[in-house]
Amino acid sequence: GERTAKAERMFELMDGFLKNDPLSLQKDILDHVEYTVARSRFSFDDFEAYQALSHCIRDRLIERWHDTQLHFKRKDPKRVYFLSLEYLMGRSLSNSIINLGIRDQCADALSQLGFEFEVLAEQEGDAALGNGGLARLSACQMDSLATMDFPAWGYGLRYQYGLFRQVILDGFQHEQPDYWLNFGNPWEIERVHVTYPVKFYGTVEEEILNGEKHQVWIPGEMVEAVAYDNPIPGYGTRNTITLRLWAAKPSNQHDMEAYNTGDYIDAVVNRQRAETISSILYPDDRSHQGKELRLKQQYFFVSASLQDIIRRFKDVHKDLNQFPDKVALQLNDTHPALAIPEVMRVLVDEEHLGWNKAFDIICKIFSFTTHTVLAEALEKIPVDLLESLLPRHLQIIYDINSFFMEELKKRIGLDYNRLSRMSIVEEGAVKSIRMANLSIFCSHTVNGVSKLHSELLQTRVFKDFYELWPEKFQYKTNGVTQRRWIVVSNPNLCALISKWLGTESWIRDIDLLMGLREYATDISLHQEWRMVRRVNKMRLAEYIEATSGLKVSLDAMFDVQMKRIHEYKRQLLNILGIIHRYDCIKNMAKDDRRKVVPRVCIIGGKAAPGYEMAKKIIKLCHAVAEKINNDSDVGDLLKLVFIPDYNVSVAELVIPGADLSQHISTAGHEASGTGSMKFLMNGCLLLATADGSTVEIIEEIGEDNMFLFGAKVHDVPTLREKGSTIKVPLQFARVVRMVRDGYFGFQDYFESLCNTVEGNNDYYLLGADFESYLEAQAAADKGFIDQEKWTRMSILSTAGSSRFSSDRTIQDYAEKTWGIEPCRCPL
Amino acid sequence: GERTAKAERMFELMDGFLKNDPLSLQKDILDHVEYTVARSRFSFDDFEAYQALSHCIRDRLIERWHDTQLHFKRKDPKRVYFLSLEYLMGRSLSNSIINLGIRDQCADALSQLGFEFEVLAEQEGDAALGNGGLARLSACQMDSLATMDFPAWGYGLRYQYGLFRQVILDGFQHEQPDYWLNFGNPWEIERVHVTYPVKFYGTVEEEILNGEKHQVWIPGEMVEAVAYDNPIPGYGTRNTITLRLWAAKPSNQHDMEAYNTGDYIDAVVNRQRAETISSILYPDDRSHQGKELRLKQQYFFVSASLQDIIRRFKDVHKDLNQFPDKVALQLNDTHPALAIPEVMRVLVDEEHLGWNKAFDIICKIFSFTTHTVLAEALEKIPVDLLESLLPRHLQIIYDINSFFMEELKKRIGLDYNRLSRMSIVEEGAVKSIRMANLSIFCSHTVNGVSKLHSELLQTRVFKDFYELWPEKFQYKTNGVTQRRWIVVSNPNLCALISKWLGTESWIRDIDLLMGLREYATDISLHQEWRMVRRVNKMRLAEYIEATSGLKVSLDAMFDVQMKRIHEYKRQLLNILGIIHRYDCIKNMAKDDRRKVVPRVCIIGGKAAPGYEMAKKIIKLCHAVAEKINNDSDVGDLLKLVFIPDYNVSVAELVIPGADLSQHISTAGHEASGTGSMKFLMNGCLLLATADGSTVEIIEEIGEDNMFLFGAKVHDVPTLREKGSTIKVPLQFARVVRMVRDGYFGFQDYFESLCNTVEGNNDYYLLGADFESYLEAQAAADKGFIDQEKWTRMSILSTAGSSRFSSDRTIQDYAEKTWGIEPCRCPL
Ligand SMILES: Cc1ncc(COP(=O)(O)O)c(C=O)c1O
Ligand SMILES: Cc1ncc(COP(=O)(O)O)c(C=O)c1O
Repeated sequence: GERTAKAERMFELMDGFLKNDPLSLQKDILDHVEYTVARSRFSFDDFEAYQALSHCIRDRLIERWHDTQLHFKRKDPKRVYFLSLEYLMGRSLSNSIINLGIRDQCADALSQLGFEFEVLAEQEGDAALGNGGLARLSACQMDSLATMDFPAWGYGLRYQYGLFRQVILDGFQHEQPDYWLNFGNPWEIERVHVTYPVKFYGTVEEEILNGEKHQVWIPGEMVEAVAYDNPIPGYGTRNTITLRLWAAKPSNQHDMEAYNTGDYIDAVVNRQRAETISSILYPDDRSHQGKELRLKQQYFFVSASLQDIIRRFKDVHKDLNQFPDKVALQLNDTHPALAIPEVMRVLVDEEHLGWNKAFDIICKIFSFTTHTVLAEALEKIPVDLLESLLPRHLQIIYDINSFFMEELKKRIGLDYNRLSRMSIVEEGAVKSIRMANLSIFCSHTVNGVSKLHSELLQTRVFKDFYELWPEKFQYKTNGVTQRRWIVVSNPNLCALISKWLGTESWIRDIDLLMGLREYATDISLHQEWRMVRRVNKMRLAEYIEATSGLKVSLDAMFDVQMKRIHEYKRQLLNILGIIHRYDCIKNMAKDDRRKVVPRVCIIGGKAAPGYEMAKKIIKLCHAVAEKINNDSDVGDLLKLVFIPDYNVSVAELVIPGADLSQHISTAGHEASGTGSMKFLMNGCLLLATADGSTVEIIEEIGEDNMFLFGAKVHDVPTLREKGSTIKVPLQFARVVRMVRDGYFGFQDYFESLCNTVEGNNDYYLLGADFESYLEAQAAADKGFIDQEKWTRMSILSTAGSSRFSSDRTIQDYAEKTWGIEPCRCPL
Repeated sequence: GERTAKAERMFELMDGFLKNDPLSLQKDILDHVEYTVARSRFSFDDFEAYQALSHCIRDRLIERWHDTQLHFKRKDPKRVYFLSLEYLMGRSLSNSIINLGIRDQCADALSQLGFEFEVLAEQEGDAALGNGGLARLSACQMDSLATMDFPAWGYGLRYQYGLFRQVILDGFQHEQPDYWLNFGNPWEIERVHVTYPVKFYGTVEEEILNGEKHQVWIPGEMVEAVAYDNPIPGYGTRNTITLRLWAAKPSNQHDMEAYNTGDYIDAVVNRQRAETISSILYPDDRSHQGKELRLKQQYFFVSASLQDIIRRFKDVHKDLNQFPDKVALQLNDTHPALAIPEVMRVLVDEEHLGWNKAFDIICKIFSFTTHTVLAEALEKIPVDLLESLLPRHLQIIYDINSFFMEELKKRIGLDYNRLSRMSIVEEGAVKSIRMANLSIFCSHTVNGVSKLHSELLQTRVFKDFYELWPEKFQYKTNGVTQRRWIVVSNPNLCALISKWLGTESWIRDIDLLMGLREYATDISLHQEWRMVRRVNKMRLAEYIEATSGLKVSLDAMFDVQMKRIHEYKRQLLNILGIIHRYDCIKNMAKDDRRKVVPRVCIIGGKAAPGYEMAKKIIKLCHAVAEKINNDSDVGDLLKLVFIPDYNVSVAELVIPGADLSQHISTAGHEASGTGSMKFLMNGCLLLATADGSTVEIIEEIGEDNMFLFGAKVHDVPTLREKGSTIKVPLQFARVVRMVRDGYFGFQDYFESLCNTVEGNNDYYLLGADFESYLEAQAAADKGFIDQEKWTRMSILSTAGSSRFSSDRTIQDYAEKTWGIEPCRCPL
């Protein structure tokens, strides 16, 4: 009766989906200018046009997102939940428009209104909710999960301040908070009613229930988690999945009494501090400082996500025993590993399952991916901290550990050394919980992020575990999404590839890219290829001039090293190499200088705020640049630029313009590396050590297609043992001495930096690798002169990059780790 | 060329204003459900429908608001800026729809979609950014300013938490933070680019500029003020003005250094605390505690508003001497009085005007309205606090005071007593700045809020000033807007009035209301009038049952006292009167009981969290209610209900349902009172003392048309002197004793409360007024039995309320104080 009348009315008013012809787009844009951005249709600037356009795209995303969620609900497939504390999404506008397939229509619509699409896209700030590789990987994988129609959810934290902005003053790094939400964020949907209470502190008490003893957690504090959904559209599909990020809000359900006693204003201000939990991303990508706020973030994230996941399961299913048939939980590093004791707590304390039953479920649902290479870098949580913040979880972890130790003893007997190495609890000055050990024991699968990484895990870091449970260990080499790293960021190359392959299908089916090999020597491809590369270099050169005032020659080789600043990544090796090159030019006869291949050396990356050596490397880079760039002897033969505030958008601009890129970590220190893959895809040649995923890149494109150098993984321990007895090349000593002697100024400041690479201190083997580094650089110079050869190598690099698409990574995960299948939303 | 092409394109795409037929409204609502609320068109609940509808109305408001702002810009009239730290707006949906004139269309559109307009309107939470009368007055005046087409702006603070929610537990008041923004606020437009830096702390240094000495403030801290615009639509006009509220955000322009030294996380967390400035409304409407946070709020508000106002002036005018021709600044009480030294600082330190020139401008732009009755309650700021937070402002205030003292000496000679009474600086244990004295000296006009208030100001509080500058002193009796207080909240009465007056014009032209006098004895109006009142009582009775479980009889007299709990407002007198009535009923013969007029006594209101006596009054009310409501001897003859969490929405529900309302402050304590006006408009009879605006209500409707009692203003001092020698009626002693003796429990807790009304302590003269209070109550009972008389009185109350429309108040202000004229936006 009435209900049908109502439903009919609604159907009548549905005139199908939003239209994407330029006229409809224009109308929608102008409506958003007036009603959403609240500006006049007749006067709005580029930023306001960006906002309006974004809302117009958001509307279209929402349509697909609704349909996808409804479809998943109807089909009820097994779902994967990707738990990560970091996502480096970058900008969303271009990516969304491309994945929706309406780039041209949008550009047309805008140009008639007097706006340029590219200019508007530049208005968007980066969503930088992560530090580096791990976080960008999460973002790439979300894109692949959506494109490949997998029923997947990402969960994360909605930091109010993303990764700090790097500002350079006098060559020193300063950190500025990243107020990324200050101008609104059209890419998220606030879900004011999707909230969960998250509890902290308090005590554990024993209760008798049905004659049985139960542990009950009586929490002392409560905050509210509010969901913000970020729709992630797939390419060439209607599927649009959810990245759900949680923000902390003061809870209004709790401790009302507090307000009848003390000072009302104080009480409210204190409670408001709850929001601090989700306010800042920890700006360190390798070290863990055991800070309470960080632990709070982790649990806040885990608790809210699991409440949501369990709620979704229970909406449809009654029996928790079916949980593993419907749910896969992926731990992105150990950051979300508190999910293990949290699920145990819910199953045992709240759902009253028996311990064994509960643990059985745990072992079927979790898979764990580690990004760490060194045992020392594994995350540990001080027991004291955990005991005060999450007393019940500590108990559960202890219980899991007892069980684990019993199992172990059955397998290996009373080998106390090994037992104590493998134990989840680390005794010592600061008693701690080893999150990796917990994660390995409780996961059905442990993944490394490259073949080499996996070998290191099996033979070094997790040897004890591997020997007992070899079947748990797998690896899925990282990948990057060609949608963002070619289609969005290098439209000219994208068009070129499609033209030569005769199809755009490679955008969803990356293996087709290999088809380019066929034309690797085709002269007319060569011409077009070089043209595309030159246009990209021009764009980069303009950016360099705009940001640093430096004019660079397009004929020079653009040599890029952009990534987080770390001693192991050896930006210092690069800088010392540049000093060497400079020194050579200075000492050359004028005539000889004509033979030098001109270089523009580009370095970029952020240092963790507390990482002193990394900050000194940044300063050294600036000091050296100051000298070189102002030396008229050198001119265009050598330039050094530091590009500040490296982030996804900067990467999108720089990578397509690079001729050569450096990935020169000391072998055995980079778990995978994904930066290299992006350069590779874009036809940039690599100058690299055989570390992380580079080993597999070599397998794909061959040693001859790149510039390889340096010690191999198994050489490293030996070299380190040798220490100061290694004969270091004279040139190396010379360039270090130049720094020491104040040739670039700041003599005192650089002293400690110089110390790190001399004698027994040279842990990262800069001295040992210097000679072969210079040789590789010389080979690159030589290669660059032969432009035909270089172009062929460049084409083969792109053609050989298909193995490094995150589509392949995700396909592997789906099949071999998560056991999920595509669930495609009909059109 | 290109620009015209672009403009033409935009005109083409403008198909005029949004349409308001039900079909267009439905389409817009469903679009907002899908794209703004991000729910499915086929499944959304009442709250989501409310959100969608609100956005749909917001779109329409934005259209008018744009046009109005553009019109003002073109015409450039003199503008009034209303500066108030508090606005009690209540809900916006119904009000907006009514002012837009599309109530029926909306109701139709919704009902076809299966929703009821009234139900959706109930979903909205109150915007409660104020304490009581002063704040609601600001809101009413904004409505009048918009309706009467004045070029006006309201400025205020966007508190993240409004006035606390009152929760009653066991009869005690508890305070809950009011998370009013948690579910989004469609009624504001975030203006991310309208931001100003606001500075605090630091030092003052001397600089030489062009050979002249200048004082320069070197601030130590900076936060950012972001604007949120709330469109305020007028009724029967296109004009839609702006209420601009400021929120505090951490500033990103400042102290970058901080981040290269200490701990990055700590630094960001500390900076984030900037947001605290605008987070909480101080929940006290009469006392000032000299807290730093409060002072910060005041200056934050003043500084941001003035930057905005001066920027707007300078966009068009070069010469600051014209400022007074274009700008009127209205100080709503002394809360924004820092605007005076701030304008001086800008003119002298930043614009480099001479001191005299600057002070001349000051004296032409400011007008000041005081809401205070007692000298003791005037706001003072400790010099220490000001010196640390705003060192330059303190200097300027000192300079103003020196100038003031010199002027005074010329007029009154060396009368040091008087000089020190009038000085802006108060010496004493805590050296302080008297904000009222500053405001009076620097304003061209000082307004009281009722005739009686004005007399008190002239003869007591500001006698010294009045004698010297009588021409400065005016009064504008407060008013309330009939749009909200009849049209929105009492639609049945609204329709009835329009029917009998034959026009709806009274909604803009309130004097027409007097036309009802003609029909005051018309029997058929009587019938309809009573019917309307009964329906409203029914709605109120349902609310009472829903919130407290108490069933009340519609035949009883609904007797309401709802307002902030204060000793001077004498809720205690009311309760003691109720105890007396209860006592009488208990002691009556059964037969006599039949003659008793049944009563439902309704009390409501919030106590400031730190105001102990007010909280005890609330508890006493509950204790007495507990006794009476459960006494079967009493039955329907007497009920006592406390309605919790009094706010604008509750007022809108309760006022139309009241037969009698009490405004019983000790004479000389209520500056005006606006609650009484709302009851009056709705045909509720008043039981009142001759205090505040009641004196003028008497002038309008006559003493016979209400129930007046108690000491008059000039009696009060004499009565107080008499103190315990006054003969207090026996009944009074008896009811107080009942409380003392624990008849209602909580004997110890109530002891101190009882002490406040006995003997010399009875400052508010409850004892002295008790007898005449009971007589007035008896007269009300008698009046109620004669329903014809009562109805006539009720009609005459409404008919006589036109003088108390805020339209009249604003007309007076515009003519006599601000010197502004209407500026009507063409249709
Ligand atoms: C902003 C950003 N940071 C870090 C990385 C990871 O770089 P790498 O794998 O070279 O350390 C990437 C990858 O492109 C990136 O875009
Ligand atoms: C919520 C609220 N508080 C306070 C007041 C002021 O009431 P009074 O003037 O009776 O103190 C009003 C007026 O209606 C109101 O609506």
